[in-house]
Amino acid sequence: MKVVLFGALGRLGREVLSARFGNRVAIETCSPNDDADVLATTLGDADVFISSSFNQSMPDMQKLQLLQLPMSGYDDIDFDAVPTGTAICNVYEHETGIAEYVFAAMLNDVVHLSASNDLFKTGDWRESPRLGAATRGELMGKTILCVGYGNIGQAVGRRARAFEMGLLALTRNPRELTPKVDRMGGYEELADFLPAADYVLICCPLTEDTRSMIARSAFKAMKSDAVIINVARGPIIDQQALHDALSENDIRGAVIDTWYNYPDGQNRSVEPADVPVHKLDQVLVTPHVSGWTDGQQRRRWERMGDNIENLLAGRPLDNILR
Amino acid sequence: MKVVLFGALGRLGREVLSARFGNRVAIETCSPNDDADVLATTLGDADVFISSSFNQSMPDMQKLQLLQLPMSGYDDIDFDAVPTGTAICNVYEHETGIAEYVFAAMLNDVVHLSASNDLFKTGDWRESPRLGAATRGELMGKTILCVGYGNIGQAVGRRARAFEMGLLALTRNPRELTPKVDRMGGYEELADFLPAADYVLICCPLTEDTRSMIARSAFKAMKSDAVIINVARGPIIDQQALHDALSENDIRGAVIDTWYNYPDGQNRSVEPADVPVHKLDQVLVTPHVSGWTDGQQRRRWERMGDNIENLLAGRPLDNILR
Repeated sequence: MKVVLFGALGRLGREVLSARFGNRVAIETCSPNDDADVLATTLGDADVFISSSFNQSMPDMQKLQLLQLPMSGYDDIDFDAVPTGTAICNVYEHETGIAEYVFAAMLNDVVHLSASNDLFKTGDWRESPRLGAATRGELMGKTILCVGYGNIGQAVGRRARAFEMGLLALTRNPRELTPKVDRMGGYEELADFLPAADYVLICCPLTEDTRSMIARSAFKAMKSDAVIINVARGPIIDQQALHDALSENDIRGAVIDTWYNYPDGQNRSVEPADVPVHKLDQVLVTPHVSGWTDGQQRRRWERMGDNIENLLAGRPLDNILR
Repeated sequence: MKVVLFGALGRLGREVLSARFGNRVAIETCSPNDDADVLATTLGDADVFISSSFNQSMPDMQKLQLLQLPMSGYDDIDFDAVPTGTAICNVYEHETGIAEYVFAAMLNDVVHLSASNDLFKTGDWRESPRLGAATRGELMGKTILCVGYGNIGQAVGRRARAFEMGLLALTRNPRELTPKVDRMGGYEELADFLPAADYVLICCPLTEDTRSMIARSAFKAMKSDAVIINVARGPIIDQQALHDALSENDIRGAVIDTWYNYPDGQNRSVEPADVPVHKLDQVLVTPHVSGWTDGQQRRRWERMGDNIENLLAGRPLDNILR
C-alpha cells in the first residue's frame, strides 16, 4: 500500500507513520512546488493521499482509496474533484487545545494576569485590596454561547460546567448532546440567543450557511459587555461588521484566532483582514494557533495511522466525510 | 443587637447589612485610627465584631458573642486575646476567584495569549503553523499537586478534572475528599509527591507546621520544568529558597500572589519580599488579588449576614473556628 503525504505534512508524518508501519506501507512525499510530471508519477498509484487541500489541478489518481485530511476543516477540499470511489476522512483532536485557548481568553478577560503582573512589576500596589482596589469579575455565573456544538463546543462545554458557567448552544441539527446545555437551538435562532451571552464563541464549520452569519445585526443583538471569540474560520464573522461593532462599542471586545487572509511561502507579511480590525486595542489577536498543540499533532497522527490500519485490515474507516 | 465593623470593611458592609437587617440590628463602625476611648465606647457593648484582626490591644468587650472574620485566613487573630465565651467564625467564598486565578495562571503558561497577541499585533506571523511554527503544550495530561486540599484545593480540583489533568493532594489529615484525587498524602510526604507535579499549588493555611514548608530541598525535588503557584500565604515558601531555586533553574517558573511584606496607610511602596524574587522575569506577580472578586464579596457578606441571623434566631453558627 502506498501512502503519499502532501506539502509541509511530510516531515513529521513520515517519521510517525514509518515508525508505526515499517515496511507494511510505502511512504512518499510530494509538494505543491513539484513539477506536474513528478506529481503525476508520485500520486498516480497512491492508495492513500494525506492532504489538507484538493482541487481539479491534482493529477489522475486511479487507485486512490482514501483522501485523508490531516485536520478537521474541509473548506480547501473540492469534493467534486476527488475520484468518485475515494473515501474522504478528516481528524479532530484539536478540541482540547482550542478549549484551553478559549478558557485562556475568558480567564484573561476576567483575571487579566499579564496586565496585573506588568503593573505590580513596577512596584505599584494599586490593585491591592488593602489599598481599596476594586474587585474583579468571575467566570462563574457568566454565560457562554457556543455557535456550533460539535467536538470543540462540547470540549468547551465540559470545562464551562466545571467553572459553573451558563451554557447555551446553536447547531445545525438541534438535539441532546453531552454535556447538556441550558438551552439549545438552530442557527436560525441566533438573534434570540445572543442577548443572553457574556461570551459568544464561534466554533462551527464554515459553510454557505454560516459564511457572514455574524453580521452587524448580530453584534447589535449582543450585550454591550459581550466578548466574541472566533476559533472556527474568519469569514463566519463579517469583517467590516466586526470592525464597526468594536469601533462603535456594540460589544466590549473580541478574541480572534482565525482570519480572512493568510501568509504563504511568497508573502509572509499579509494583513490578516482587509479592514484594520486586527489593530484595534479591544481585540486580542493570534495567528490561527488555538488548536496547534503537541497533543493535537500526536493524537492526529495516531488517528491517521488508525485509518491506514483500518484500510489494511479491511475495516470501516473513521470520521468519513464522504 | 449591636454589630461593629472594623476598618475598611465598614463602607461596603454597613450598606449590605443595613439593607438586610433594617432596624433589627444597630450597625456601627470604628477604625484602628480611632482614639482608645472611642474604641472602648463603640466596642464595649458590641454583640458582634466583624474584623480581620484581633489582639491584646483591643478594648474590653464583655457582651461579645461573635468575632466574625470577613475572610478565611486567621493568622492576624490572637485567639488568646478574644474573650473566652466568644465564638470565632470565618468565611470562605474566595475559592471560586482563586481557582479561576490558578487556571488563568496555568493557561497563561501553556497558551501565552498576551505574548502571542503582542507579537501578532506587530504584524509578525511567525507563530503561525503555516510558517512551520512549533506547537505549544496542553494542560490535558499535566499534573497539579495541591498542597492543601480544603475549599480552594477542591475548587481547583473540580476544574482540573474537567481539563483532564492529573490531580494530587496533600492535607493535614489525609482522607477521601471530593473531587477524588489520584493520590492523597500528608504534608510529611511532600518530598515524595513533588517529583510528579507539573504545577505545585500552595493553598494551605499558614501555621507553624506550614511556615517555610517549601524550602530549597522542596524545589530540588520538583521537576526542572515545574511551576509553583502561591495563593495561600507568602511565608509558606521560604523567600530566599524561592529566589535561589528560580535563579539557579531548579524549576521553570512561579506565579506569586501572596507576599512577605504588605503596604499600609503609611507605606504604599513597600517591597513585597526582602530578597528581589518579585523582580525575576520567570515570576509572574500580583498584589494578593487572586480571590478579590465581586462574587466573593457578595457571597461573603451574605454568609456574614447569615451568621448574624443565626445569632438572632439562636441557631448554631456557621464556620466556627473556636
